[in-house]
Amino acid sequence: MTSDRDYAKLYKLSHHARILSGISSLLNWDQETYMPPGAASIRALQESTLAGIIHEQKSNKKFRSSLAKLIDIPTGTILAKDLSQEKQAALKQWRRDYIKDHALPKKFVTEFAKLSSHSVLAWREAKQTNSFSKFAPFLEKLIDMSRKKADLLGYQEHPYDALLDQYEPEMTTAQTSKIFARLKTDIGVLLKKISSSKQIDDSFLHGSFSHDKQMEFSHLILKDMGYTSEHGRLDLSSHPFSSASHPTDSRITTRIHPTSVMSCISVILHEAGHALYEMGLPQEHYGSPLGDSISLGMHESQSRWWETRIGQSKPFWQHYLPLLKKQFKGKFDHIDLATFYRAINKVEPSLIRVDADEVTYPLHVILRFELELALIEGTLNVKNIPEAWNAKMKALLGIEPTSYANGCLQDIHWSMGAFGYFPTYTLGNIYAAQLFAAFEKKHPDWESRVAAGDLPFITQWLHEAVHRHGRRYTSQEILEHATGKAAAAAPYIAYLQGKYKQIYNYT
Amino acid sequence: MTSDRDYAKLYKLSHHARILSGISSLLNWDQETYMPPGAASIRALQESTLAGIIHEQKSNKKFRSSLAKLIDIPTGTILAKDLSQEKQAALKQWRRDYIKDHALPKKFVTEFAKLSSHSVLAWREAKQTNSFSKFAPFLEKLIDMSRKKADLLGYQEHPYDALLDQYEPEMTTAQTSKIFARLKTDIGVLLKKISSSKQIDDSFLHGSFSHDKQMEFSHLILKDMGYTSEHGRLDLSSHPFSSASHPTDSRITTRIHPTSVMSCISVILHEAGHALYEMGLPQEHYGSPLGDSISLGMHESQSRWWETRIGQSKPFWQHYLPLLKKQFKGKFDHIDLATFYRAINKVEPSLIRVDADEVTYPLHVILRFELELALIEGTLNVKNIPEAWNAKMKALLGIEPTSYANGCLQDIHWSMGAFGYFPTYTLGNIYAAQLFAAFEKKHPDWESRVAAGDLPFITQWLHEAVHRHGRRYTSQEILEHATGKAAAAAPYIAYLQGKYKQIYNYT
Repeated sequence: MTSDRDYAKLYKLSHHARILSGISSLLNWDQETYMPPGAASIRALQESTLAGIIHEQKSNKKFRSSLAKLIDIPTGTILAKDLSQEKQAALKQWRRDYIKDHALPKKFVTEFAKLSSHSVLAWREAKQTNSFSKFAPFLEKLIDMSRKKADLLGYQEHPYDALLDQYEPEMTTAQTSKIFARLKTDIGVLLKKISSSKQIDDSFLHGSFSHDKQMEFSHLILKDMGYTSEHGRLDLSSHPFSSASHPTDSRITTRIHPTSVMSCISVILHEAGHALYEMGLPQEHYGSPLGDSISLGMHESQSRWWETRIGQSKPFWQHYLPLLKKQFKGKFDHIDLATFYRAINKVEPSLIRVDADEVTYPLHVILRFELELALIEGTLNVKNIPEAWNAKMKALLGIEPTSYANGCLQDIHWSMGAFGYFPTYTLGNIYAAQLFAAFEKKHPDWESRVAAGDLPFITQWLHEAVHRHGRRYTSQEILEHATGKAAAAAPYIAYLQGKYKQIYNYT
Repeated sequence: MTSDRDYAKLYKLSHHARILSGISSLLNWDQETYMPPGAASIRALQESTLAGIIHEQKSNKKFRSSLAKLIDIPTGTILAKDLSQEKQAALKQWRRDYIKDHALPKKFVTEFAKLSSHSVLAWREAKQTNSFSKFAPFLEKLIDMSRKKADLLGYQEHPYDALLDQYEPEMTTAQTSKIFARLKTDIGVLLKKISSSKQIDDSFLHGSFSHDKQMEFSHLILKDMGYTSEHGRLDLSSHPFSSASHPTDSRITTRIHPTSVMSCISVILHEAGHALYEMGLPQEHYGSPLGDSISLGMHESQSRWWETRIGQSKPFWQHYLPLLKKQFKGKFDHIDLATFYRAINKVEPSLIRVDADEVTYPLHVILRFELELALIEGTLNVKNIPEAWNAKMKALLGIEPTSYANGCLQDIHWSMGAFGYFPTYTLGNIYAAQLFAAFEKKHPDWESRVAAGDLPFITQWLHEAVHRHGRRYTSQEILEHATGKAAAAAPYIAYLQGKYKQIYNYT
């Protein structure tokens, strides 16, 4: 009983800070959607002011002593053993956050933030003027500081573990390396088979598609998925994203390519996957770790699930192709389901990660992961990045960048100091494939249901398997509960092999 | 020098709280524009959490001691006499806010907020079911608490002074009564003359006007006014409003009546008037009283200035009528400027305040002011409001409500406990008229400039006379600086008489 009272006290403090971080999400959403451009400075000040209050509230004596009453912070031993398992799990996550939040001295955090914000500007300039040397000195400092960050955060085997752990808790460099090595080999083989097969013509996916009709079709799909306007909304922004301040306020954005019909559809499936995860988090735990999503990889598993596993599946288009034909009259009159399905799954090595297909995308991520590892280990110098990048592109994808902009300067992430982030994209695919295998077992008739336009049973399954747990279990535990196995490359590879063998019809 | 350092400390604390209240404005804007409806509960919690932090920051010991170093809080004597006049003026306002913020015990504030939120629901129900008795008990309690509030806030002559002072600092009941008495008499005479003249046909202002074309025309006017999309934006909401979180982020909303062309135009002129005031506040003082608007009355003077003095003037339509004809092809082909001008200035007593024309509007406000006074004085009982309301409508406007909904239950304000608020609407007109007389002296050629499509010089004049001062001067001081005179009814009456004699052509 005493422990429950102490838990309630801790929860109240944490809940208060969580409300503020929800407000911060809204500010960020507004910044990317409707904010007048001239308000950028005051918005930055609003964001940093809120961040300061949140940090103070999660670091002050009251918070620490509330936490320390229930769990021994240095060792992680639960002191309040009478608490439910659920609450004990929450305590472990609170402790984890507390330690991470306090591992970095304030001076270090400020310096890193300052360096990043200058680096983003330098990166933009370097990309525009195709001059790697303008960005190199910043990147050098960022890597130095990231190594220092790893030391401060602490790790067992590899400094990269500490960086990866920021985005994908409990995942290790060794485990990721193992998964990625397998992917690299098997996708390499797959890609060769695809390359030597007859290529696909997807030209009919390009043309002129009205903005309003694209938006209308997006709303139709979102509604069918169970992404309700009661708790969500769709807006436009230059880079699509999802942003939730609470399970009852989980928004997404898209952008419209007037000449590509699939661009916006992929985006809304992807972002709604993220948004449904946030909507499905248990409201009653909002403010405790039990009310938060577990990791970026698991988040990406939800978005990629909808984007690729559902949105690039044949049954999905069995239902939606007739609707698409109706929506864009005259555009797809002579296109049958098989042709459409092949076109949206066309594989073609390309230079830009964000434009990559399902098969080649992991290779872009693996390239970045390998370079990051080498940079952190010190076996690669910043000045040699362009050369290393191009060599890896050649080896993995058989093509080479024609500029820094479509080569090593294409992504913003490094300039933001986000080392350890890229792997979560591919871990998301891995998790999704594993979860999907379990889903297929539970719903062997999923294809006929999806072909009939039924989608909510999918959201329901994901809710049971993932959403409702918040951070009660780690990503790995969630996978093990759902599938009986730890994260592994096999299900994803099996999926790719099965699907693309059928599409490209190789032997 | 020491004082400047102490001032800087106080400013820093106040600036921090102001940033948070700016965030609160954004939350409110979002709530009325884009928020998913199901997020209402978390939004309320976000708002109250921020309000709690702001209140704490403006009441804590640090803030009080910083303020008390520079000004004696009980007496208002400036202690830091070496500070600039400007800074001394800021100190007086900070002290004023501090005293007002602390005059009401926390328990009282909470109770009042609770009562108001229940009363709003009761009012809505009462209005819908046309049952005054459902609202009466709430209103009785609200009046009791408002009397108590006046006692707690303190006043010299009349308890209503304390209530009015919340919205219109330094304005007294006596001064307002005097102005309103004069208005009542003179508008009464004017209205009789108008009523016995030939009536105006404004039917061509009604018809079918496309949403998109109305929005396009609105954007055109806003751009001409100097309301830039760099620091502002226009959205839709069910009740139009303006909302600024900073001079660089000052937004407005409108609603589109598909059958009335003037509705949206009036709204955007009105709201942009408010928004330009906020945009024109001195950014360098953001967070000190020098960076805030001075009063609701002065705010309303800005909105009514644009809505009526400019937007219902002949030179304005000399420029815009040809554009309107182009925008709505075929709608106004046979309408000349004189006819259009007469139509948009049609006077007709009506039951609903928000639909009232320029001449009858003040009578609606005076009615409410007189009832509020009687209720606070205790000379009118709540149960007799409907009777008193109807009698006053008959006496002032010659018409009588047919229901509570178009009678004494039409406005939300009383249910929110906002006694002392209504007068600011008409004080706004009074101030605008007085300022306009000064503006005409400075710009005797204003009509030809406006007729040529020039509007920014108006904004510039308002900026010089009002916006740039923030709260350095009271409303009355601003009027005296600009016009040499205290607030008085004469300029407004002279304006109405001159304008409507010409329009209605009476003798």
